[in-house]
Amino acid sequence: MQQKSPNVKWQHTKIKREDREKVLNQKGLVLWFTGLSGSGKSTIANEVEYVLNSMGYATYLLDGDNIRHGLNSDLGFSKEDRKENIRRISEVAKLFQDAGIITLVTFISPFREDRNNARKLIPEGRFIEIYVKCSLEACEKRDVKGLYKKAREGLIKDFTGISSPYEEPENPELILNTEKETIKESVDKVINYLKDKKLIR
Amino acid sequence: MQQKSPNVKWQHTKIKREDREKVLNQKGLVLWFTGLSGSGKSTIANEVEYVLNSMGYATYLLDGDNIRHGLNSDLGFSKEDRKENIRRISEVAKLFQDAGIITLVTFISPFREDRNNARKLIPEGRFIEIYVKCSLEACEKRDVKGLYKKAREGLIKDFTGISSPYEEPENPELILNTEKETIKESVDKVINYLKDKKLIR
Repeated sequence: MQQKSPNVKWQHTKIKREDREKVLNQKGLVLWFTGLSGSGKSTIANEVEYVLNSMGYATYLLDGDNIRHGLNSDLGFSKEDRKENIRRISEVAKLFQDAGIITLVTFISPFREDRNNARKLIPEGRFIEIYVKCSLEACEKRDVKGLYKKAREGLIKDFTGISSPYEEPENPELILNTEKETIKESVDKVINYLKDKKLIR
Repeated sequence: MQQKSPNVKWQHTKIKREDREKVLNQKGLVLWFTGLSGSGKSTIANEVEYVLNSMGYATYLLDGDNIRHGLNSDLGFSKEDRKENIRRISEVAKLFQDAGIITLVTFISPFREDRNNARKLIPEGRFIEIYVKCSLEACEKRDVKGLYKKAREGLIKDFTGISSPYEEPENPELILNTEKETIKESVDKVINYLKDKKLIR
């Protein structure tokens, strides 16, 4: 996208990410949870944030539904709006990572290209794509929010998995299979991955 | 603005602002610097962030120019785009404040209504409007970025102070008069205000 404000120059800030990370004693990260509605993204991310908070880490959870109440309240679910939804949240995740925060992002984010664009904004090794894998059948059976029923009835248009595609990640850092794993097992996999990669202590 | 995704429900997160503030041992705040281009917003905010970082606080600076390179790269300077520019950054500042971060925002933010909308998003007492006051004549004389010259030549449209209005804050928490005060004096005023109000230790 071409910037619409060509006279605006980048302003270098005196305090850098490194200075902020020193105060926080941690590394800024983006944990990007992608998967179908009902796959367990929010459930797992909430538990991961709970564990990280208990360990003393500064965290923030950018929840797809909640961001649609504020920053992205002007966006619907058309292909263009979905792209813009993910573009904006990618930029916000970039800011949080730059602030030194462990940033958990839970968006269906169905398109590979959009997720790859998010990754490109984040320094190498600091973007962890977590595919919360669950079959459409299982998600639809859970139907926690009653949205699949509405989508099947045609009351919701452009619903991922039903009337809009979901493109599986090709090389995610982590796959959580929520049909086979317990929530605790999935959470442990995330925490252990971060420890193994020395992204947390 | 009406939300364009009526089926999306608010998701309660397990970890709350209080939990994050406990880890950070600080209060989430928004320091909103408003004023003409060249008034000194960025200079002062950078120094304030430097002092706060040295004191061990977790901070982040949302700079108007930098946000226009990323999140708001699709926006120009028409009245509508300016409104949307401030709306989005208000929502982002809300997220940072909710994360427990001391958030410094440096946007010209010329319209009173937009600044008041930003304030409404933030819990009582946590939004500090800082008017960086400097006459148009002095700002134009400084013309650090060479933008006033371009605006006078008609090369930049909708330039605040020249071809677009600036509405002074009516009841800002702080006024910094950068024509009369040194940078250090302005910075001290901000830090002392935060201490007086027990917003920092």
